[in-house]
Formats: sequence, structure tokens, C-alpha cells
Amino acid sequence: MTISLKEEKKVFGGRQIRYEHTSSVLNCTMQFSVFLPPQVEQGKVPAVYWLSGLTCTDENFSSKAGAQRVAAELGLALIIPDTSPRGDDVPDDADGAYDFGKGAGFYVNATEQPWQQHYRMYDYIVDELPALVEANLPVSDARAISGHSMGGHGALVIGLRNSSRYASISAFSPIVHPTAVPWGKKAFSGYLGDNESAWQDYDATVLLRASKGKNVPPILLDQGEADNFLEEQLRTEFFVEANEAVGAGARIRMQPGYDHSYYFIATFIEDHLRFHASNLR
Amino acid sequence: MTISLKEEKKVFGGRQIRYEHTSSVLNCTMQFSVFLPPQVEQGKVPAVYWLSGLTCTDENFSSKAGAQRVAAELGLALIIPDTSPRGDDVPDDADGAYDFGKGAGFYVNATEQPWQQHYRMYDYIVDELPALVEANLPVSDARAISGHSMGGHGALVIGLRNSSRYASISAFSPIVHPTAVPWGKKAFSGYLGDNESAWQDYDATVLLRASKGKNVPPILLDQGEADNFLEEQLRTEFFVEANEAVGAGARIRMQPGYDHSYYFIATFIEDHLRFHASNLR
Repeated sequence: MTISLKEEKKVFGGRQIRYEHTSSVLNCTMQFSVFLPPQVEQGKVPAVYWLSGLTCTDENFSSKAGAQRVAAELGLALIIPDTSPRGDDVPDDADGAYDFGKGAGFYVNATEQPWQQHYRMYDYIVDELPALVEANLPVSDARAISGHSMGGHGALVIGLRNSSRYASISAFSPIVHPTAVPWGKKAFSGYLGDNESAWQDYDATVLLRASKGKNVPPILLDQGEADNFLEEQLRTEFFVEANEAVGAGARIRMQPGYDHSYYFIATFIEDHLRFHASNLR
Repeated sequence: MTISLKEEKKVFGGRQIRYEHTSSVLNCTMQFSVFLPPQVEQGKVPAVYWLSGLTCTDENFSSKAGAQRVAAELGLALIIPDTSPRGDDVPDDADGAYDFGKGAGFYVNATEQPWQQHYRMYDYIVDELPALVEANLPVSDARAISGHSMGGHGALVIGLRNSSRYASISAFSPIVHPTAVPWGKKAFSGYLGDNESAWQDYDATVLLRASKGKNVPPILLDQGEADNFLEEQLRTEFFVEANEAVGAGARIRMQPGYDHSYYFIATFIEDHLRFHASNLR
């Protein structure tokens, strides 16, 4: 369980670092990015794990969200993994689709061939990455989780299924009900097969309803009303209904005029980091 | 003098917009980006012009600097041009060099063939672009100018030569003395020819010394001490010496640990925008 430093840059008094490591869960070499705030000089700091969306690597959020400013103020580490296994040995979609295969791991453990050997992003995010980070970096096991789009789906699913491991959950423009929308159906049938009962464990709306409102961490969700993917792929209304049905208390904000881009994330990431910091205390 | 809207995104309550227009100065179609803060609802706002560095387009600063947050608070427009003429009809460096030709206009008016028909970025930034912006957008003629690296050179040169047109000047990691460093010598000999007397009008250190400290707008300059280009290409010390020699009062800050990247710009852009806002009042 070692990591090697590939690049380090100073930003807002802290350090933005890119690491490489051999993942035994994903069976490949992975890169991830970390922001360490100045407060690591005084000891371990809590962490917000950020799960990115389709086509992204660890670099999109690192360079475009402007999250380091507030993380430096609040003393939060940011842990920013890639969105799928990588490398020449990892199978990819035969047609190079943007929404399946590399860059589109959907944070599930694949059970189908030829994906099951590498596409185990759920276990990577829940177990291997935090263990690696906490063993090698000045980062505590006080964790929150957030993400965008496919990564918003990942954050909600992972946070809901592991409520003792995450103090809070947040999401931007998440795919809230993947078993009912084209992106989710394509990914889940590919990675998990045609037995739709296996899909339910990776659907935030299903999980929230099944929770009956018990052991649900605090949730903050932002969704832009001018998001081109809202109507067909994101379908926030399913999560709103589930939240009301079980009284889970998630705060769900529809934001007029905002689209699916990183400009939306940049605008509201401060709210999300302050929300997580207050729950990590 | 018309502009057409290519893309618009909401960010921090304002609008990030990409425009296209036909430039009569550059003899080609150009794109530029603008951030309009929410305050345009109440009338025209002052503008900070941002000049980008080598290889950039209008998109780098727009997506990576995080400038919109503070610009929205202060009621500043951001005007973000491209770094050279563009298009298939525009000649480029034969070897595709990153530091000459497209993406590397160096904010000069070329006098040499085959560059002189298109490579007139000085006139574009000083005259055509502000006229276009002020005729078509809710932006006043209260202007400040800033930039990074090659664009820091451009901001200093343009601000110093047009002190009545710019309330203040700032620069990140600028090439302060291009006539004395490899990037500048290559660009100036290509665009301006071998007569080095023609180069002097585009050298911020030469211009600052020649000013004898008269009519110099307020200047803020930030330079990272861990910048790989500092020793060979940027040579901040020349500008420091000129500033002291003529008593121009430029504020020049060496920033320990910071490199040449947008992480450096993101860290200090707030200071620069507050500096410009105070001078634009």
C-alpha cells in the first residue's frame, strides 16, 4: 500500500498533489489527486471525497471547481479519484462510448465479463482508497463524500450504504435514479447484467426509500434548472419524492438558470464544503 | 462592429459568455469571452481586461482562475480575448512551436512578412476590442488590464503606453523584459524584424524606465518563487530595479512556493480584482 508523488503545486497556502499507486482492487495503476490544506502542519485533517462525472479524470475538479480556497480556510483535505480503472490492460467500450467503460465506471462492482476483473470502483472508493490515504497522508478517518452527475450518483449511493463511514453526503446534478434512466440502464446492464434486482443496491432513490429515513447522513443536493440532462437522465424529482416519503431530511435545492457545467459547481462548492465541515466537526 | 453569442453559462449569479466577431484589425474571425456580473442589471459596469499566456485561448482563464466569484461581488466585467489571430488563413509557425505564431501573438503589431496582415494584437487589444465591447455590451470605458506570463507582458506594455485608458495594471508571472530573454527575442525578431530599436516599445522594463515614473498607473505584480520560467524568461528583477530607479511605486510581490500555473493565479486573483476595483472607483 504505497503511493508515489507525481506532481505537487502550491495553491491557497496548501498543496495540490497528484499521486500514483497500484490498485489491487482495480488491478491496474491509478492516479488520484489530493488537496492538503495548511492545517496539516498541526495534525490530521478530515476529508471530503469528490467523485467526478462521465469522461472526467481527477484533474477536472482539481482545476475548475475553485474548491481549494474554502478547503484551505476550513482545514479540509480533498480526495479526488479517477472515474474508472485505466491502462492498456483494462477493457473499454468497443465503440469508445463516453458513457460506458473508461471514464464511466459508475462506482459499481461489475459482475459481468469482461468488466469484473477491473471495474470495481465501489470497493475502490469505499475501502481501498481511504485506507491508502489514511495510511500515507495526514488525513483522518473523518470523511464526507460529494460528487457531480455520475459522481453525484456515486456519492449518494456510497454515503447511503455506508452511513457510519461518512459524516455527510452532497451532490451536484446527480443521477438520482439510475435504474430508470438511459445512462444508468446502459451502465448497469453492462456491468451488472440483465438481472435488475442486482441494480437496486446502486440506486440512490431505491436506497433512500429502503432506509425508511433511518441512519441517513445529512444530505445537500444542488440541481441546476437549466441542466440539459435534467429531464432525461437526472430526474431529481424521484429523489425529492423519496426524501419526502421517508422524511429523510435531505436538503434539495433547485437552482434557476444553472446548467450541468463546472461553472455551476464552482458557484456552489463553498456551500457544500461548509456543510460538510459543519458535519465533520 | 457586431458580435454573435456562441455560448452562455450562469456562474455566481452572473453570465459567462463566449462571443464571435470578425476582426478588421486581425483580418480573421475571433472569439472572446466575457463575464458580466449581476450588477449590469443596474447599468454599465467597469471592466478588467485579461490577457492570457502562451498556448492559451479565452477559455483557460474563464474556467480555471475562479475570478467570477469576486468579479460578481465587486461588479466588474471580465473581458478575456484570445492570444493570437486564428483560422486557416492565418499563418502559423512552420514547426508548430508553442512560443511563436498561433497562441503566441505577444500583443505586438507585426511589421514583418508573413505576419503583418494578421498579427496585430496590440491594436486589437487597445482599440478594436474595447470599442466592440463598449458598443455592444453593458460595459463602460472604465478599464483596468491584467494578464499572465506573455499576457502579463502584454498588460504591462499596453497599460504603460496607454495610461489614460487604464485605471490600473496588474500581472502574474509576466515576461518583464522581453528584449533580454529567449521567448521575447524569438517573438520580436520574428514579428518585428532584426532592428532591435523597434522592440523597445514592447518592453515593460524599458517603458517603465523611459517614463521616469510619470503617468504610471498603479501596478500590482505577483511572481511565484518556484516558477520554472523565472530565471530564464521572466526575470522579475529587471522590473524591480526599474521600478526603484524611477520611483514608479509598483507593488511587486514575490510569492514563496508558487509556480507558473493557474493554481497560482487562482490563489491571488482576488487581490488583483480588489486592487483594480479600488482604482476603477
